[in-house]
Amino acid sequence: MSSTAGLVIPCKAAVSWEAGKPLVMEQVEVAPPQTMEVRIKIKYTSLCHTDLYFWEAKGQAPLFPRIFGHEAAGIVESVGEGVSDLQTGDHVLPVFTGECKECAHCKSEESNMCDLLRINTDRGVMLTDGKSRFSIDGKPINHFLGTSTFSEYTVVHSGCLAKINPLAPLDRVCILSCGISTGLGATLNVAKPKKGSSVAIFGLGAVGLAAAEGARIAGASRIIGIDLNPNRFEEAKKFGVTEFINPKDHDRPVQQVIADMTDGGVDRSVECTGHIEAMVSAFECVHDGWGVAVLVGVPNKDAVFMTKPINLLNERTIKGTFFGNYKPRTDLPSVVEMYMNKKLELEKFITHRVSFSDINRAFELMLRGEGVRCIINMEE
Amino acid sequence: MSSTAGLVIPCKAAVSWEAGKPLVMEQVEVAPPQTMEVRIKIKYTSLCHTDLYFWEAKGQAPLFPRIFGHEAAGIVESVGEGVSDLQTGDHVLPVFTGECKECAHCKSEESNMCDLLRINTDRGVMLTDGKSRFSIDGKPINHFLGTSTFSEYTVVHSGCLAKINPLAPLDRVCILSCGISTGLGATLNVAKPKKGSSVAIFGLGAVGLAAAEGARIAGASRIIGIDLNPNRFEEAKKFGVTEFINPKDHDRPVQQVIADMTDGGVDRSVECTGHIEAMVSAFECVHDGWGVAVLVGVPNKDAVFMTKPINLLNERTIKGTFFGNYKPRTDLPSVVEMYMNKKLELEKFITHRVSFSDINRAFELMLRGEGVRCIINMEE
Repeated sequence: MSSTAGLVIPCKAAVSWEAGKPLVMEQVEVAPPQTMEVRIKIKYTSLCHTDLYFWEAKGQAPLFPRIFGHEAAGIVESVGEGVSDLQTGDHVLPVFTGECKECAHCKSEESNMCDLLRINTDRGVMLTDGKSRFSIDGKPINHFLGTSTFSEYTVVHSGCLAKINPLAPLDRVCILSCGISTGLGATLNVAKPKKGSSVAIFGLGAVGLAAAEGARIAGASRIIGIDLNPNRFEEAKKFGVTEFINPKDHDRPVQQVIADMTDGGVDRSVECTGHIEAMVSAFECVHDGWGVAVLVGVPNKDAVFMTKPINLLNERTIKGTFFGNYKPRTDLPSVVEMYMNKKLELEKFITHRVSFSDINRAFELMLRGEGVRCIINMEE
Repeated sequence: MSSTAGLVIPCKAAVSWEAGKPLVMEQVEVAPPQTMEVRIKIKYTSLCHTDLYFWEAKGQAPLFPRIFGHEAAGIVESVGEGVSDLQTGDHVLPVFTGECKECAHCKSEESNMCDLLRINTDRGVMLTDGKSRFSIDGKPINHFLGTSTFSEYTVVHSGCLAKINPLAPLDRVCILSCGISTGLGATLNVAKPKKGSSVAIFGLGAVGLAAAEGARIAGASRIIGIDLNPNRFEEAKKFGVTEFINPKDHDRPVQQVIADMTDGGVDRSVECTGHIEAMVSAFECVHDGWGVAVLVGVPNKDAVFMTKPINLLNERTIKGTFFGNYKPRTDLPSVVEMYMNKKLELEKFITHRVSFSDINRAFELMLRGEGVRCIINMEE
């Protein structure tokens, strides 16, 4: 057991006091973990677009003050009552969605949408007692996604922690905690392209590049990247993307451009933009008879997916996925091993590194659309 | 070789001279099979809704005179040049769609939508030379779906004939040539319900009952039948249907009724009505995380499939199927064996039998919505 177990830990956290305003480095108090909870020391965290989206608070109910951050790696400091599969010193990835191992979803081989610990963007407190573990001068600070990794210490439900190989470098595998696994799993677990097949990837941000990386690992021979920003094409080549389409360059729908390039359509497609037009294109660009389209990106609430039934009846498949269909605790350790075995290349996703005190630079880079992932070192 | 090989065969055929008018028994001349064609003696045929639909010619370009019929069983009389895998005396099921074994679809494990021999409802002639093999007083009569089984003899492309076990009773297995395989395969090959799972079947006509039969064979524990006609419920029990819903009995969408009955949705659904509202309901009634909806019925050309993207993103799958994903030549023989091994029960689909001379009675029964399948005995 750690010497701090059972005690409140004072530490630094980057607190977001107001929507869209720079985070402020504060001294916060982190309460000990309660039943089924774990307190972890965050070593590295990275910024994911979902942090930015809720920080900007355009379109959702704002919840401030809040400690954002959900893509990270850390080490267990202490565990609460009832936690038997984790102990002080374990290396873990906190995950924004969990795995209770007891609900119908966890028991199903096909689902990872745990009933108990499924993502909840509106909740700013812990599930156990409806309270926050963070405070400043006794006033609670809201959690985010049950992870709040922009803090030197954080408390997470034990069902949202994947225990990983202690030899894995945390400054790299931290990015497996959200976006990279989401894209990678969408291709490897859901689209499942065969060796030699063709795959279209809509959106070449971090998730789309991870989907391309999945297609490269699966041995796809053609990986067609689609993005409105041609600056992303050069970067995407490193991820195995062989051809590029900017829909703005064509006066016909991109699904037709793809069909013309591929004798009727690609074998698989993965949609990572969250735009409804791209969802429809991603579906309609797959080949009849065997094409499978996988949807990852989350569109606007009012969007409606529309297609002619014949597109479905001609033996096309459309499937949605969440966190790449990975069960966080069961499956993430093996994704870490894919990296350790040099099958999965993580370094190329990491384009920037900043110290924790410079966390607002990571926000600025993402707002400018620069780079793929920016790693935040909590100890600098 | 048969004694009639190479000769024109005069025989009886039920000719449709005009849309919606009773068929007329005529003496027709059936030319010998050309390259890659086979002439077969039809022993039994049955009436499928697609015959009725094109006979009524509401909504498509009418093509008359025509010999309808595509669900049948027969015996090879003679083969044309280049046919090496069939010979005189072989028992066969003619199929409205084919398998050339050479195109990308035939070479794909996932597709049965042969490029060369895919269903073509507009063509009234043979593929080889663009001519009809049927004539009356030298005037050609149009083919239908490349099968035209309402004739004692017919000519079919060899790629559209499944060679089956000669011990199989043709007066029963003839119904495997279209509708029953379509529904059965939709469940067994595409929906693939696990033992103990729940399956919703939309539409309890022949195809839907065959889909239910597939669910029964797969060991589904709950099979929920949905139909606007409550008269079908009693019959459906024989096919393993355990519960019934008439959407007219509820003031909320049927997908909600199903979700309430099944703690969030069924594991699998199969849509066999061809109505766009039912397609949407069939998709939205499957459970998030693992639900799979399979679309069989073909809706109106102007229909649009619409759903909220979140229904997909919550890990639901929607797939279309054509002829139950069976490759006609490769797979149908094993479906016949399923019947021979008593796994698949065909007798319960056969509710009526008529002699060939009474063929118009089969049309009347179907127009009145009576029964499931009516077998037409060509030798009575």
